This record gives sequence, structure tokens and C-alpha cells, in this order.
Amino acid sequence: MTLDLPAIVTGPLTSAQRTSLINIIRRAARTEILPRFRRLAGAQIATKSGPDDIVTEADTAAEAMIARGLARMFPGAVIIGEEAAASDPSLRHKAAEAELAFIIDPVDGTWNFAHGLGVFGVILAATRYGRPVFGLIYDPLADDYVIADESSPARHVTASGQETPLTMSGGGPIDRLSGYTHMSLMPKDAQKTLAPLQTAFARTGALRCSAHEYRLAALGHADFILSGTLNPWDHAAGVLICQRAGGVARMLDGADYTIAQDAGYLLTAADDATWDAVADVLEPLLG
Amino acid sequence: MTLDLPAIVTGPLTSAQRTSLINIIRRAARTEILPRFRRLAGAQIATKSGPDDIVTEADTAAEAMIARGLARMFPGAVIIGEEAAASDPSLRHKAAEAELAFIIDPVDGTWNFAHGLGVFGVILAATRYGRPVFGLIYDPLADDYVIADESSPARHVTASGQETPLTMSGGGPIDRLSGYTHMSLMPKDAQKTLAPLQTAFARTGALRCSAHEYRLAALGHADFILSGTLNPWDHAAGVLICQRAGGVARMLDGADYTIAQDAGYLLTAADDATWDAVADVLEPLLG
Repeated sequence: MTLDLPAIVTGPLTSAQRTSLINIIRRAARTEILPRFRRLAGAQIATKSGPDDIVTEADTAAEAMIARGLARMFPGAVIIGEEAAASDPSLRHKAAEAELAFIIDPVDGTWNFAHGLGVFGVILAATRYGRPVFGLIYDPLADDYVIADESSPARHVTASGQETPLTMSGGGPIDRLSGYTHMSLMPKDAQKTLAPLQTAFARTGALRCSAHEYRLAALGHADFILSGTLNPWDHAAGVLICQRAGGVARMLDGADYTIAQDAGYLLTAADDATWDAVADVLEPLLG
Repeated sequence: MTLDLPAIVTGPLTSAQRTSLINIIRRAARTEILPRFRRLAGAQIATKSGPDDIVTEADTAAEAMIARGLARMFPGAVIIGEEAAASDPSLRHKAAEAELAFIIDPVDGTWNFAHGLGVFGVILAATRYGRPVFGLIYDPLADDYVIADESSPARHVTASGQETPLTMSGGGPIDRLSGYTHMSLMPKDAQKTLAPLQTAFARTGALRCSAHEYRLAALGHADFILSGTLNPWDHAAGVLICQRAGGVARMLDGADYTIAQDAGYLLTAADDATWDAVADVLEPLLG
């Protein structure tokens, strides 16, 4: 379709490129994801690392379709998807070192999707030498999305095309903050450290779907997100979108986030003061 | 529409009555709920007890519409909705003592609904002297529902009309169980007791929506639900549906659940062995 586009994008995406990316995602959602929602049979669901780590036909088919579209648009880019990277872990390091890489999570929130809960999304990130430069989080059920790139503010675009700038929450005192913490994905000793710390906040939880957690944070409806599982397809887009919505995202030990980070804790928060206050509460996790 | 129906139902609902109830709920969802999803403005959202306890125009309009339909079908029944009961707490006790009462949660998961997260439902329960005898949990976005009454097994009915019997999960060892615990709704001292206990399980969380928690449990996708906030509109339908799907639901201290219960903890689990094992872990909450 767009073979005349540059092989490597060295500047911000053009408006036409953004539209093409959204159309690729939307088409995959309509063709490969939505028709399977609440219609999967057992044989269309397989487990990966354990009973809670699953992949469906929707994941693999949507990833293949999106990857094909990206490869046509950006022939020189490294393109990795969650399902491909699960089969070949070296792809992740290849992406982190690439001048331009696209990272696809075809169905983020697969457990929800496979169990009929409408909390799933498609995530697409672009990185330059590992650093997120484009992020798109698409909600197939509502046909809406949040989007950001390095040169324009984050915004929310509805199915009818209405655009609204995204702004993180105003933060507040610790005991009024609400956040997502991926406790169940952490080793048991980390869970035992984290569990009592969480009572300092007004509310902690997890949606089993990074797409909607970052979406809600970027819309100002959650104050922070903590994750100890650093799959780049879960975080690269959301980190950039929250940053471009005025938020702060970095590793709990203070390091910058890039997709090369594969250990430690990533904390995204409404602003600097909130990040510092939450990090103080969570500091025992580093010990 | 159905003025010739008996004023008080003393036996199980007829098939025609069930169909009428489903149609009342479906119509309210299509007319008053779905058109407002992701389209609410700030003025259409009001707070109740605190910033997390909100009501929208969808709640009040849907409750009024459903209550009108029920009153036409069952002129002698006590009919209470979450929003009416919030204004007049005596309604709850009136319902608990009634031969037949209907309890409406017009938008369960209001926070999710108001913040654009597609995890909300309409819950309708009927009770006889406080004991649940009918339960319906309807998902407006998917137009499907789970349903049970005292004389027939629980079942899942899809938008296309396909019916499947519901069966709770098979349970399993404690460290493989996944459950919902409404920790953020508990007083801080109970949170501090519960937080470390939760690490015994594979996963705990909360959807901020009883409708989908009970739905997933009845579909076999969650092993238990613990709640310390006993609003009957959140639990009466789900308890019956889970019981009729083979599950066990009673108060953590062993008492039977009726809508008169307004303190303590309600535990619903996959089966007797799972209920006992989870209750053992949670026993410090009683002390």
C-alpha cells in the first residue's frame, strides 16, 4: 500500500503515517479480534508459561496481520510482537538496539479476552534505540484510542473522531491515591513485601490489561502504575503516552525506562511529586 | 403490559415472566445506559458518600425505568433499587421482610462505567423473606446474561440466545486459587489483616463490579469472592447464581446469607472444600 514511504523513519511520524498505523490496528481488530470475542472454543486457547499465561487464535492472527502491514510501511524497521517474541526471546534485544522498532501487543489482556471480559486492547509502540517515540493504545470494543508521539501531546480520540488532550490526574495525598500494581505477577517474596505497603493507598488493583491501565492513567482516572514484569509490548506505548500527558515514568531505582530494561520495577505516576511519594512507600521493594 | 399477572409470586417464576424481566432489563440498558457510555459529561456524574462512590444519570434513569416495569408486573412486590435505597435506608429492611421483593442495581460498576471501562452490568434479584429466589446479571455491552432461580440450574445465555449451564470452577490447592476480594472497601484495620493473607492465593483482585465478578465465578473463571460490604443489590443475584452453579455462598462466620445481613464477610466459593480452605486462610478477619 505505502511502499514509497521511507524505509527508516528518522523524525516524527507524519499525520498520514499515523492514520495508516491506526487503520492497520483497526482492521486487525475488526477482522481477527472482535469476531472471536466471547466465541472462542477451548481448542482456540493455548497456554504458554502456565495456566494464566495464554494465547488465543486472535492473538496470533492479529499479530501476523499487523506485522505484515507494518513491514509494508516500514521495510527497514525491526518488528516484534508479543507472540513472536515469546517464541524467540532474542527479538527483544534486536528491537532494543534498532534505530526503529515496532512492538505489537495484538491482544493485551488475553486472559480477560479469552474469559469474556471486555477489558483488552491492542498496543503498538515504536522505539528508537529502545526509547519509545510513538504509542497507540486501541480499544476494539469502543473503537477509540489514546495516542502520543515524541513531538505532540497525548490525546484521546473517540470512535466519532473527537480528539481531547490527555492529562494525568492531579495526584494528592498518599491515602487518596489509586493505582495499579501487578502483584500477582511478582515472585512470592516480593508479594509479601508489597502486600502490606498497598494499604497506604486508597485503592490498589490490577485490570490484567496494561492497555486499559495506561489508558485510565492517561485519562486522569488512576494515579500510578507499578509493574515488575517488563515486557516491552505491555509498557513502551503506555509509558510514552503517560509522559506526554504530563506524567512521570521511570524505574523505581531512578533509571530511565527503555525497552532494554528487563528487571526491576517500572513506576508511572501522575507527576513528579506523586512519583516521589509513591516511590517512598514502595522503597522496601528495592531492598 | 402484563397487568393480569399475580400480585405476589409464591412459586417459581414462569418462563414468560422470566422473558418479561429480561426484556425490561434489556430495554433499560439500550435506552438509558448504553447511549451514555463514554459520553457522560461531568455534570451527569454526582458523588454519594465520597469521590469513589458515584452515581450517574444512567443509574437513576435506568433504575426508574426498571422499577416501573417491575411494578406493572408485580404490583404487590416491594421494589428497591440501589439509588432509591441510598436515599432511604429503611427500604432495605422493608425488602428483607417482604414476601416478594425485587432488588435492582441499575448500573453495577458505576465507577467503571463513568470512567469509560466496559466492566459494568445490570443486576436484578428477587427475594422471598430476604432469601434470594431469582437472580439475573446482564451485560449491556455484550447483550448476554447469567440467570438462575430456585428451581432451575444457573445458565449463561448469549446475545444469539445460545444457553449453556453454568458450573463453578473445580477449585484446587490454595496457591492455585484466584479470587476477588473487595479490600479497598474495607476499613483500614481489616485491610491490614487481609493484605498479607492474600499472598496465600495465586491471584486476588477486584473488578469494581460485582456483576462481572459473580459472572466470571459462575462461568468457572474465578474460584472465590470475598466481600465485607453487603449491599443486597451487589450480592443477592450473584449468590443465588453461584449456588445454583454448584458453588457455596455463606457468611464467613458460617451464617446463611440473606439480604438482612448488613455486617460481616460474605464468602462465595467454587465448592465446599474450596469454601472451607479459603475460609481457613481468611479466619483472622473474624478475630
